[in-house]
Amino acid sequence: VASAANGLDGAVRLTAPGQADDGVHRWLAERRRSNDFAVTRIPFAEMDGWRFEPESGDLGHESGGFFSVEGLRADGAAMSWSQPILNQPEIGILGIVAKEFDGVLHFLMQAKMEPGNVNTLQLAPTVQATRSNYMRVHGGRNTRYLEYFRGAERGHVLVDALQSEQGAWFVGKRNRNIVVQVTGDVPEHEDFQWLTPHRILALLSSDDVVGMDCRTVLSCLPFARPGGAARDAFTDALSRSYDPAAPARHTSTEILSWFTEAKSACDWRVSTVPLAAVPGWSRSAGEFADDARRNFRIVGVRVAAGNREVSSWSQPLLEPRGQGTATFIARPIDGVLHLLVHARRQPGLRDVVEMGPTVHLPPDEEPAAADRYAEAAADPGRVRFDAVLSEEGGRFLDARTRYRVVEAGPDFPVEVHPDYHWMTVRQLMDLVAYGHHLNVEARTLLACTHSLG
Amino acid sequence: VASAANGLDGAVRLTAPGQADDGVHRWLAERRRSNDFAVTRIPFAEMDGWRFEPESGDLGHESGGFFSVEGLRADGAAMSWSQPILNQPEIGILGIVAKEFDGVLHFLMQAKMEPGNVNTLQLAPTVQATRSNYMRVHGGRNTRYLEYFRGAERGHVLVDALQSEQGAWFVGKRNRNIVVQVTGDVPEHEDFQWLTPHRILALLSSDDVVGMDCRTVLSCLPFARPGGAARDAFTDALSRSYDPAAPARHTSTEILSWFTEAKSACDWRVSTVPLAAVPGWSRSAGEFADDARRNFRIVGVRVAAGNREVSSWSQPLLEPRGQGTATFIARPIDGVLHLLVHARRQPGLRDVVEMGPTVHLPPDEEPAAADRYAEAAADPGRVRFDAVLSEEGGRFLDARTRYRVVEAGPDFPVEVHPDYHWMTVRQLMDLVAYGHHLNVEARTLLACTHSLG
Repeated sequence: VASAANGLDGAVRLTAPGQADDGVHRWLAERRRSNDFAVTRIPFAEMDGWRFEPESGDLGHESGGFFSVEGLRADGAAMSWSQPILNQPEIGILGIVAKEFDGVLHFLMQAKMEPGNVNTLQLAPTVQATRSNYMRVHGGRNTRYLEYFRGAERGHVLVDALQSEQGAWFVGKRNRNIVVQVTGDVPEHEDFQWLTPHRILALLSSDDVVGMDCRTVLSCLPFARPGGAARDAFTDALSRSYDPAAPARHTSTEILSWFTEAKSACDWRVSTVPLAAVPGWSRSAGEFADDARRNFRIVGVRVAAGNREVSSWSQPLLEPRGQGTATFIARPIDGVLHLLVHARRQPGLRDVVEMGPTVHLPPDEEPAAADRYAEAAADPGRVRFDAVLSEEGGRFLDARTRYRVVEAGPDFPVEVHPDYHWMTVRQLMDLVAYGHHLNVEARTLLACTHSLG
Repeated sequence: VASAANGLDGAVRLTAPGQADDGVHRWLAERRRSNDFAVTRIPFAEMDGWRFEPESGDLGHESGGFFSVEGLRADGAAMSWSQPILNQPEIGILGIVAKEFDGVLHFLMQAKMEPGNVNTLQLAPTVQATRSNYMRVHGGRNTRYLEYFRGAERGHVLVDALQSEQGAWFVGKRNRNIVVQVTGDVPEHEDFQWLTPHRILALLSSDDVVGMDCRTVLSCLPFARPGGAARDAFTDALSRSYDPAAPARHTSTEILSWFTEAKSACDWRVSTVPLAAVPGWSRSAGEFADDARRNFRIVGVRVAAGNREVSSWSQPLLEPRGQGTATFIARPIDGVLHLLVHARRQPGLRDVVEMGPTVHLPPDEEPAAADRYAEAAADPGRVRFDAVLSEEGGRFLDARTRYRVVEAGPDFPVEVHPDYHWMTVRQLMDLVAYGHHLNVEARTLLACTHSLG
């Protein structure tokens, strides 16, 4: 029996020091050395089991599983376009097992190889598996630790929500983001290590260490930040931004209404179309790319790996050209830190609109649409967080985004364009629990905000 | 500046007597007399502007607007079927204007004619308009009172959420449910009347008076129910069920996790297909129906009306065979009323699963799938609410559902099947504000629950 009050039942406290700072990098380097990974680009024709459908031109696996590369068409009054898109209708599990040691919560993190990862191996959730993976549709090993998320051994749920992924590259993709707390013994494996949330958050400031799937699960957790001596007005306002009783610029009704308005105002009609029906893109032996060479391209790779469910395979990957940027502009309002959230349209999001960073420029997008606050977001003197982090290495090749939290300058307006809204950290944490409110870039930046102090 | 606490900012109090009880029925009867409505069944060939596409067999309007009748195909491991479905991708507005008179909140209700309505005319929201309606795509009059929802004259928002409609009959349909409170003078029109929420809720127990669009908007509002002298243990538990501090059987994290699990477990893949590709259905001059005559059928009507945006038109309607039933089983748990909510799969829901009544049997559905608690739901000695209410008369012809709230008997289990969860009224009110959590039948029953006392 629990309180019926809306809101989060528990919170993960952000103060849990006492863990050595260098162990993780050493462990990751060691795991990288002891696993024999090899990722090689290959022509499409050499991919096992993958083929372009003669009629539609779609690129898919002969089993009908995994994912496929199809076309997407978006039509609105103001604009209309087609593009290739990844279609992966299955809901996978991104799950973290949590356990207290000496009264301090730890998360069981995985050193996981993905073919598209910068540095091959990054920190991942305890379980990161598509439904086909864990149902063993394609053979392979049991998914380690799956029993803590499904069936009788399931732990106490701290958070459990469906969340979107890159709306420019996936159509309707979503994964189940879940954290369970267990009390019994958990068998250890050399690819896994118990880390405190504090330590994982601190690792966010190292480039390309904490993977996207780990960041999105972390971002769903309710964190609490005790007050106390603050370094400056910004960090004092940050602490207060976690307090449900702190004054916020907008009520939750106002925020939900703004979000409803943004969805209602978007007239985009999105549908999947045959890949062959996407004009301006063509296929060579080794890539599927736009003729202007401005967008991402699709390539094929062969992977040989020691610690995967299947030890060798080939697959397509989406390779962006260049690096994206995603920035939250933040400022204290009445002594409480607020982040400037953008109602962001992306064709692959299930509702087309989710809440995004103040400025988000994917590598393959024209600047015009997103540059309203780009100048303020680039102010180097006011950067509070700055790291280059990788997007999902199982689907994207060398896809990196520069994530920043930037303090608004004294001239930055409190009154903003109607597509934007100021929100407290607490309000974002409450929304993320319902799923499909914050897009994946905003969720990464929410996790980065938790790492500030 | 408001509290950042998650939850509802204000609440509509459920005690506001002082309004005569018979005025509404008289007014509706008078409006019915003074408007010259005529609805006539016609062959499809006589419908103006509507036609079956030669290739796909889809039934649509030549403008591409309004809605169309297409095919839907659902595939899962356990079952697979096709059926006709209404496709209306536009987001319409279902809006109520609220205003205080002598300190008591009133809602501006419309006596609105719809061609499929039982009794032709029922209570509707202030504004009930598709986007094409209010943008005047098809000509016609301005939508009355629209200015309170859009643009400069917009009132203070009490609630604003996108909600689903019948998941068995619509694919992906959703409308914006919004209530705005205004303070200035509002011009009056003979088809509109100010009513207290108390009075509207009381009208729910009259058959076929409060229309579906009115019920769904009402269900989104946060109501408060002051304690006090209760008639019995049930009504005492009902009052306590509105209290955010009252003990609930499940935390909100548990409820959201259960909902996420239900969505993740459903393997249905749903797509629209050409109507001509739906087997077992065929078209005659006057109907599109399944050969077994078990399901709904599509028919054509001609409408002549005095107070519509366009004074005469023809259109298709979906006509179910027989009457549906929808029941919430309710019981006090630890002195707080809980409703038994079902994680309900319907192919046309955007996420396939939403929270539904304990038992919901559409007129055209086989009983087997939904009869787990059907016997308890039919117990006539324990019925707390019982009325036959109409579904949306703009799309459905004589579609009626018997809505009931039934108190669980002493033998009814507290431990229920995993597809079901006990929730307090407060928990349902909190969830409904986020949209797409409660399906339209559960929302009607939530409104009916507010009418109990």
